[in-house]
Amino acid sequence: MTATSTSQRGKMVNAFNPDADAKLPARTRELIERRATVLGPAYRLFYQTPVHIVRGLGTKLWDESGDEYLDAYNNVVSVGHANPHVVQAVHRQMETLCTHTRYLHDGILGYAEELRATAGRPLTDGHLMLTCTGSEANDLALRIAKHRTGHRGIIVTSEAYHGNSDLTASFSPSLGEGSPLGTWVRRVPTPDSYRIDPADLCRRFVTSVREQIADLQRHGEGLAAFIVDSLFSSDGIFSEPTGLLGPVAGAVHEAGGLFIADEVQSGFARSGDAMWGHQRHQVQPDIMTLGKPMGNGFPVAGIVVARDTVARFGHEQRYFNTFGGNTVAVAAAQATFEVIRDQDLLGNAARVGREIRDGLRQLSEKHDRIGDIRGTGLYIGVEMVSDRDGKTPDAATATAIVNGLRDRRVLISATGFHANVLKIRPPLVFSSADADRLLIALDDTLSSVERHE
Amino acid sequence: MTATSTSQRGKMVNAFNPDADAKLPARTRELIERRATVLGPAYRLFYQTPVHIVRGLGTKLWDESGDEYLDAYNNVVSVGHANPHVVQAVHRQMETLCTHTRYLHDGILGYAEELRATAGRPLTDGHLMLTCTGSEANDLALRIAKHRTGHRGIIVTSEAYHGNSDLTASFSPSLGEGSPLGTWVRRVPTPDSYRIDPADLCRRFVTSVREQIADLQRHGEGLAAFIVDSLFSSDGIFSEPTGLLGPVAGAVHEAGGLFIADEVQSGFARSGDAMWGHQRHQVQPDIMTLGKPMGNGFPVAGIVVARDTVARFGHEQRYFNTFGGNTVAVAAAQATFEVIRDQDLLGNAARVGREIRDGLRQLSEKHDRIGDIRGTGLYIGVEMVSDRDGKTPDAATATAIVNGLRDRRVLISATGFHANVLKIRPPLVFSSADADRLLIALDDTLSSVERHE
Repeated sequence: MTATSTSQRGKMVNAFNPDADAKLPARTRELIERRATVLGPAYRLFYQTPVHIVRGLGTKLWDESGDEYLDAYNNVVSVGHANPHVVQAVHRQMETLCTHTRYLHDGILGYAEELRATAGRPLTDGHLMLTCTGSEANDLALRIAKHRTGHRGIIVTSEAYHGNSDLTASFSPSLGEGSPLGTWVRRVPTPDSYRIDPADLCRRFVTSVREQIADLQRHGEGLAAFIVDSLFSSDGIFSEPTGLLGPVAGAVHEAGGLFIADEVQSGFARSGDAMWGHQRHQVQPDIMTLGKPMGNGFPVAGIVVARDTVARFGHEQRYFNTFGGNTVAVAAAQATFEVIRDQDLLGNAARVGREIRDGLRQLSEKHDRIGDIRGTGLYIGVEMVSDRDGKTPDAATATAIVNGLRDRRVLISATGFHANVLKIRPPLVFSSADADRLLIALDDTLSSVERHE
Repeated sequence: MTATSTSQRGKMVNAFNPDADAKLPARTRELIERRATVLGPAYRLFYQTPVHIVRGLGTKLWDESGDEYLDAYNNVVSVGHANPHVVQAVHRQMETLCTHTRYLHDGILGYAEELRATAGRPLTDGHLMLTCTGSEANDLALRIAKHRTGHRGIIVTSEAYHGNSDLTASFSPSLGEGSPLGTWVRRVPTPDSYRIDPADLCRRFVTSVREQIADLQRHGEGLAAFIVDSLFSSDGIFSEPTGLLGPVAGAVHEAGGLFIADEVQSGFARSGDAMWGHQRHQVQPDIMTLGKPMGNGFPVAGIVVARDTVARFGHEQRYFNTFGGNTVAVAAAQATFEVIRDQDLLGNAARVGREIRDGLRQLSEKHDRIGDIRGTGLYIGVEMVSDRDGKTPDAATATAIVNGLRDRRVLISATGFHANVLKIRPPLVFSSADADRLLIALDDTLSSVERHE
């Protein structure tokens, strides 16, 4: 097990392995070969048998053969695949005007006003700056942090992922050993609530942050920012305890650094508890960064930043993003926001998420590879272990389940340092019936995996 | 004049100045105040009287009052505002499926195959990697260059702009004094064909590059890449001589660096001479980067990279961009590509560009502030000077013309170190009638500016 886990390090969880001896359909093989030729080696596919999706609606996807899949993975299309309200809004704006922010427009102002109103102080009086991707949002947030503080030290969690730009990849350890971290980057251990007592965990976590601040100072760097995804997605999904980040924000501010909430995964009602993940921890970030679900698949992302934090940067260093906040991107974001609000997807995420976790707890009574069930709203982690007493990570079983579900046409993935945590993160319109279908398929897959050992 | 020019340094050319005592309509003032509140100080507007555009079609834009503008500036919407072929393709794909590259899709493969076929060796056998913005494309290109060479030295032209990410802003001197360059960045002087004899210019330019390579090596950095926009857009638009870059590519390769062609401005038929700007210089880049016009306003961008160049990076460092190359982005890019090809916009750019430059030469006979007329296809620069003998840059006149044209509802901008070069860069569907309207308005504006001095 240890060997398997270690070999996962630096690789992508749930990646298709072209060297594995899989029996792929001829058409799949042909597409994979064309990909290798024209897209090259940096591209990765999901699953041992990659899927070829051609259509989507709500929580369902269909492949070329017309087979239906249940999507329990894609958070980007948070208001559902091909959501008609978003599709219409984008189409209406595309045929009217698609242009940038150096002309005046109403739409971006209305959207910014509504979005700010969902945040607490100081962000509710802050500024919205639009980019196209979460990577650009985090990159911009750190540029601002470095400019504001005069330092470049960055603290992240052990398995954090914050982006694919040169800067953000430098503080994204989950990209693996092949991707170097910046010399100014420090890591604190994953807050592993499965293995560490909650009270002890909070104390240990803030102590680690303080130690790394001191280490950055000792190396002459100083602290620019602590940046965190409050659901710790790539660390293995740790939604509790929510008292974790408050003391950290205190330590970070004390050291003159910025607290940046990366809401790319945890934001836009995903947690079922609050619009923004950091609100569960009752912290007041200096910047929050937005991405993936913001436009339901249309490329739009951004940051909300406190006025004071960006005042000098804004005057000395203009920021312009050609597509960022263009009229169509704003239309997509506005329509997505309206669906989340008008269909109470926050409430739906809370309710259906609870149903899934309740069902998982029932499954854990008969399947002892389920070591821990975590998460909030529609972001759920299920940690697979080979023995519950030793809590030994079981990546092989997690991989078998992800692929077994895929063969049953239910899409999820896995995450965490040991690649042994099932990642269940469906569109927010996931229904109780969808939850039942997921749980039945998972039960069947677990039984099958157990039988074949 | 020198004082004015110097004060432009570090500021944005053609930016609205909120401190100027302009008489703005109440509605405009209200929008500007809301922007300042919710978007903050990093956002900039164009023109002394900003425009509020609400609709676009082809080469025309309309403001809130229904007034029509001729768009002689926006290269992003290269196949025209609200192009029906692109609008339909995006809509069809949006209502079918919007998802990422970790599932198999046909569309991205077909597009990659068609796009590669337009490039010369080694790119025609290379890989397409998709991002959302030109900044992301250049950021990725330099990440690959650094990984490939083991060095981080980057050489750019004096006033280059290559992006807004932390890395790309570090080698974009045109962002001004407030935006620091990396210690590993070296600049070579703008190839000023207006002031330097062509033969001498080529020799001087490659000598400068060699000197900066030596300087990088002397500082222990070594050369990762030379990156260039072959139309030198932010340097002031220098389309000639086309013998300039060949010797540079030789020097760069000799030093073990990569030659990166930034085609964000010069690509996709803009030059009227070739699909890609670097082809005019008959160089073989290791990477070309794509952006702005690629999806006619839909956020899509990317790189084409030689197989060998990205082989090790691709295996050691996967690259994934959530929205990059999603099914809708590819549909937008494919449709845009088809319009360029099927409507022969390369030919149109050549023909209408020539008409505009011919017209400008006639105007220069009666308006002696026109010092130089440069450019190719539909990327045209007109350098304004206060005296032709001294070739003294005249930013005040350029600014007056840009704003005078705006008042006549023709949109252009300005560029260059001295902010004295008119930038005429319309959609590629610009017609002869559009060219006439532009020239008549420019004639009138020039006369008016001259009268009011």
